[in-house]
Amino acid sequence: MSDTKTVAAPADASFREDGSPERLAIDTIRTLSMDAVQKANSGHPGTPMALAPVGYALWAKYLRYDPRHADWPNRDRFVLSVGHASMLLYSLIHLAGIEEIDADGNKTGQEAVSLADIEQFRQLSSKTPGHPEYRHTTGVETTTGPLGQGCGNSVGMAIAERWLAARYNKPGFPVFDHDVYALCGDGDMMEGVAAEAASLAGHLKLSNLCWIYDSNHISIEGGTDLAFDEDVGLRFKAYGWNVIHVDDANDIAALSAAFDTFRKTDDKPTFIVVHSVIGWGSPRAGTEKAHGEPLGEDNVRATKRAYGWPEDKSFYVPEGVAEHFRESIGGRGGKLRDEWVAMTDRYRQEHPELGAELDLMLKDALPEGWDADIPVFEADAKGVASRDSGGKVLNAIAKRVPWLIGGSADLAPSTKTDIKGAASFEASNYGGQNFHFGVREHGMGAVVNGMALSHLKSYGSTFLVFTDYMRPSVRLSAIMELGDVWVYTHDSIGVGEDGPTHQPIEQVASLRAIPGLDTIRPGDANEVAWAWRATMANSGTPTALILSRQPLPTLDRTTYASAEGLMKGAYVLAGDDTPEVILIATGSEVSLAVQAYERLTADGVKARVVSMPSWYRFELQDQAYRDSVLPPAVKARLAIEMAGSMGWDRYVGSHGDTVTMKTFGASAPIAKLQDKFGFTVDHVVEQARRLIDAAFTDKE
Amino acid sequence: MSDTKTVAAPADASFREDGSPERLAIDTIRTLSMDAVQKANSGHPGTPMALAPVGYALWAKYLRYDPRHADWPNRDRFVLSVGHASMLLYSLIHLAGIEEIDADGNKTGQEAVSLADIEQFRQLSSKTPGHPEYRHTTGVETTTGPLGQGCGNSVGMAIAERWLAARYNKPGFPVFDHDVYALCGDGDMMEGVAAEAASLAGHLKLSNLCWIYDSNHISIEGGTDLAFDEDVGLRFKAYGWNVIHVDDANDIAALSAAFDTFRKTDDKPTFIVVHSVIGWGSPRAGTEKAHGEPLGEDNVRATKRAYGWPEDKSFYVPEGVAEHFRESIGGRGGKLRDEWVAMTDRYRQEHPELGAELDLMLKDALPEGWDADIPVFEADAKGVASRDSGGKVLNAIAKRVPWLIGGSADLAPSTKTDIKGAASFEASNYGGQNFHFGVREHGMGAVVNGMALSHLKSYGSTFLVFTDYMRPSVRLSAIMELGDVWVYTHDSIGVGEDGPTHQPIEQVASLRAIPGLDTIRPGDANEVAWAWRATMANSGTPTALILSRQPLPTLDRTTYASAEGLMKGAYVLAGDDTPEVILIATGSEVSLAVQAYERLTADGVKARVVSMPSWYRFELQDQAYRDSVLPPAVKARLAIEMAGSMGWDRYVGSHGDTVTMKTFGASAPIAKLQDKFGFTVDHVVEQARRLIDAAFTDKE
Repeated sequence: MSDTKTVAAPADASFREDGSPERLAIDTIRTLSMDAVQKANSGHPGTPMALAPVGYALWAKYLRYDPRHADWPNRDRFVLSVGHASMLLYSLIHLAGIEEIDADGNKTGQEAVSLADIEQFRQLSSKTPGHPEYRHTTGVETTTGPLGQGCGNSVGMAIAERWLAARYNKPGFPVFDHDVYALCGDGDMMEGVAAEAASLAGHLKLSNLCWIYDSNHISIEGGTDLAFDEDVGLRFKAYGWNVIHVDDANDIAALSAAFDTFRKTDDKPTFIVVHSVIGWGSPRAGTEKAHGEPLGEDNVRATKRAYGWPEDKSFYVPEGVAEHFRESIGGRGGKLRDEWVAMTDRYRQEHPELGAELDLMLKDALPEGWDADIPVFEADAKGVASRDSGGKVLNAIAKRVPWLIGGSADLAPSTKTDIKGAASFEASNYGGQNFHFGVREHGMGAVVNGMALSHLKSYGSTFLVFTDYMRPSVRLSAIMELGDVWVYTHDSIGVGEDGPTHQPIEQVASLRAIPGLDTIRPGDANEVAWAWRATMANSGTPTALILSRQPLPTLDRTTYASAEGLMKGAYVLAGDDTPEVILIATGSEVSLAVQAYERLTADGVKARVVSMPSWYRFELQDQAYRDSVLPPAVKARLAIEMAGSMGWDRYVGSHGDTVTMKTFGASAPIAKLQDKFGFTVDHVVEQARRLIDAAFTDKE
Repeated sequence: MSDTKTVAAPADASFREDGSPERLAIDTIRTLSMDAVQKANSGHPGTPMALAPVGYALWAKYLRYDPRHADWPNRDRFVLSVGHASMLLYSLIHLAGIEEIDADGNKTGQEAVSLADIEQFRQLSSKTPGHPEYRHTTGVETTTGPLGQGCGNSVGMAIAERWLAARYNKPGFPVFDHDVYALCGDGDMMEGVAAEAASLAGHLKLSNLCWIYDSNHISIEGGTDLAFDEDVGLRFKAYGWNVIHVDDANDIAALSAAFDTFRKTDDKPTFIVVHSVIGWGSPRAGTEKAHGEPLGEDNVRATKRAYGWPEDKSFYVPEGVAEHFRESIGGRGGKLRDEWVAMTDRYRQEHPELGAELDLMLKDALPEGWDADIPVFEADAKGVASRDSGGKVLNAIAKRVPWLIGGSADLAPSTKTDIKGAASFEASNYGGQNFHFGVREHGMGAVVNGMALSHLKSYGSTFLVFTDYMRPSVRLSAIMELGDVWVYTHDSIGVGEDGPTHQPIEQVASLRAIPGLDTIRPGDANEVAWAWRATMANSGTPTALILSRQPLPTLDRTTYASAEGLMKGAYVLAGDDTPEVILIATGSEVSLAVQAYERLTADGVKARVVSMPSWYRFELQDQAYRDSVLPPAVKARLAIEMAGSMGWDRYVGSHGDTVTMKTFGASAPIAKLQDKFGFTVDHVVEQARRLIDAAFTDKE
């Protein structure tokens, strides 16, 4: 390494005494963190103080990162899974001199995190929110805070690197060879999502992945021995990781040795257990009081004294510290990036097609003609399950968008998300496109988010009812505005015999309730085709595709409106311009609504049938369009959905009603359940007539 | 053991050849399972076929269970975490001759599962639904199917046994000394929730807990080596479990030795890894095709031939098999229960107070005067956070209801759920009332369900946003109609500086969407008191208590209506009988609505303010009451809630509106956020006036 000469490696008590730039940088991180939390009167000082040496050692000595180009695709990733320790990251970003890049990918000429930003820690609209937010602060690789998620993201990032390397690297062109580091805490280690992701990472032998586990033996309720005394290192050995112990977080030499071992390990991920003291150097050191509240002015002063720091100075960065830090990381990273840019220029010449593809992918754009193979489905009364048509459309797109990759939580034969003819992504073949996440829905969620953060259009699939197992990750995909795709099949009591535990009721509503998530429940195969078009267009919006287990009739689109209407969220399938009643349905209930509409029309009732696959998209339309689909004058409105009624009142209004599920489902063949719960043409027609009568009475 | 003489223990090939009752019983379980799945044309035959010997060995030789009294409180628990293998359990229940007990605890005189019931596998209203359902089928200890949950439940049951033993056992009176067995599969082992629960069980040294892990190396997508090749046994060693391997699921002697070891182990839980062949004996043995679909008529015949079974007979129970099985389990269990009944009769005499308490608890009833110490809170403009008043009320009740116990996922200092003066539940003190679940929300959920299944009024607490981490368990608490209590604090953007990852938006709506869950968001300290009264009354209904981080003014109940109105879900706090506008609010927004109401009233506007803490309870009221709170004639209605708007249209109607969150939150002090997002008196008054004007215009 180019910067070893600056490292004194003082693992002993003299560490705090020497005046090296290293020691100053570490104490700067500590004191900035203390000061920011104190000024905000809110936040978590203890972990940044404990882990400042880890952050320093990793960033200054190892991380291959160019602060002037935070969007360099081959940069090493640093994930702060302990998101509450955000001041550690902000301090590092500041000291490294990371330059800000805006939403359009342009440099703003500003520091990503200035000292003034640090003084605005946790204030409205500042660059330094309580937990690190992706897109909001340059240098933040993923939004963290909910524990375990960053760990899972890091596995996804490491997977992405392996896949990108397998696809794009050519002899002499190591376009992708970066590493992924995650800083994790006891909380992460207790969360199941991290356990799932760790098991998968071990299985996949992701040797580009390094987790640094901050073992400080403190949790919010007190010592971790209150609830957590397993042998974490042994557990990671069981997962197939290489496990290294560093006895003192202040021991830069030991940390360096561990990172060196990680870099040399090529057959498994690395787990570094770092023993630290929370709130190091403060009167609250080693106690839970150092975790989640300001130290208090007196303690801040006492701590600064202990560090040999000027106790009257706040937000103090001694001269030379930033320069030393910037030179360390930026000198190394800048050189590496420059070489990479020159190499990829040559790459584009020698491998023009791959080069063009790579550029497209990194822009989150789609290739010309990406949708050329999407089938048009013929009208067919027997129809096809939307999971099946979904699989066909996915395959048609994946053929032309190679970075559309993903898999299932051990349900691919049921969710139909395998890419036909493609290999599995395995330790022996990192170029595979079909991912086997195992029965680990939550881990899948966090991993897919990590893949999306590396520009892969990635998807994860399971049964709709099991979205509950992975909601924190789905939420984060929406918070981060990622383009990932959640494919949820077996979307109603249509599941049949598996019964109430497997029949989603509240799941669709719960997904629709997540801000910024496009939940689409297509009504037939052609709506599925448009749903996937919408999904691919959703580059900064995650999509949940809600698909059926059972066959859905394919509507005759010469009789009924084009399925392209899906793009607007809801559209009139057919019916009167001044209807007496509007039937609104999604997914498998669209064909039921159509049958009821046909019966009503045949009986002389002026009816309209509306397909409403995406509430999210419908709400984005202007009032005029929305009123054209659901004219305010028409009060008799009936929504039909084999799910709970939550939220439907918005569209059926005070005079309308729903045919929905009021309870959990039951175990029986689907036809028996449809009958039991009222999803029959007779029942829908009866309810529609009741509403027409009521609306007529209202008018009198 | 009393029945060793009936056991031939043939671990070799002769096993299938001998005609012992044991072998016949095992093959009966296998063939009943095959036949039921085949007849239903749906289900999972492979695991029951593989694990029939395990089920036989455990039930016939070890389980302390009286089939005539399935509600014996000290029975050993058997949890089928692999719920899809339901036919294994139904076969065992049938062969054991478990007698049915109805919802009121009375014997019906019917078999819990008759042969006719088995023939109705997976049919509407049958006793044999696709996955085992608690309350629906006597002998089913918990509803399983969603993987990992049964594992977690079993930890809760083992905890319950330890707690009950610590509280009620006296010298000479081992009232509780039962064991808990769970049968788990590869899927369970991959799920994070099971990992969390296993880590906690190891920490707590639950030596009364035995997991039998069916390692069959098959998952739905193919061999488990596709996604899962960790050393599971080593992982459990890391958790602190005793790990035993049984190389062949057919080896009754080895299984018996393992169970013997479990019984002798008194310092840690036991993990028995049983290697099995899925679909044992069938042409599909050892393949994923044996997992989740009928074998097919031909394969069923071929398998029966391989078993030496009459291939033309379906649902065949050879003579003597049921008798042998009933005698084995019932002889042992009946004797043990008879002794227990006699012992507890003496116990009631020697320890009358504890005896009476025990009887009350087992009936899910409450002691006389249980609510006598619940405080009445004085009007106070500064007020108190509902998490704090919640803690006070919880403590007032816990003093009189000793089995109201629970804890937090490492957030008790924040959720305020500690019982003051009580000890922690630890391996060294199983009588403790404060539980430290660690940062394991999902594990906590499954564990609390298991505790509730043993009649403890148990609670688990975390921040509201982290309900997402545990939704599958919350759902199951509703499906099973358990009385557990989910205490969710930090319930809105009121969280402030921690920012969007920690600020719930969609969580309240997502909880309200779960059928049968009473989600209560009380508006001040006196509503909190009533919310806990409602919670304690909810013996067959889980409750989610949604509490604030920030202080809420305590309303003057001489000016405003009594908080007892909470019991009806919504009630008029104050205002005009024929209002121009109705303000509806929950939780922290009730005081905001009251302030806006006061301003409007002062300005001469006829307004009404409604507190609506529980939609669930409000929907249970009759139409007349609901109309009295929200008169249909009043169209100008404004709902105010610092959460997403999903569902509010039901109460504000087509002409109403909401002041709610349209996006995720932000990191800033609370006052800045309230201002940014419109939760101010000015904004609410402005919106109310707008609605009044619009309603007036509508009428013109």
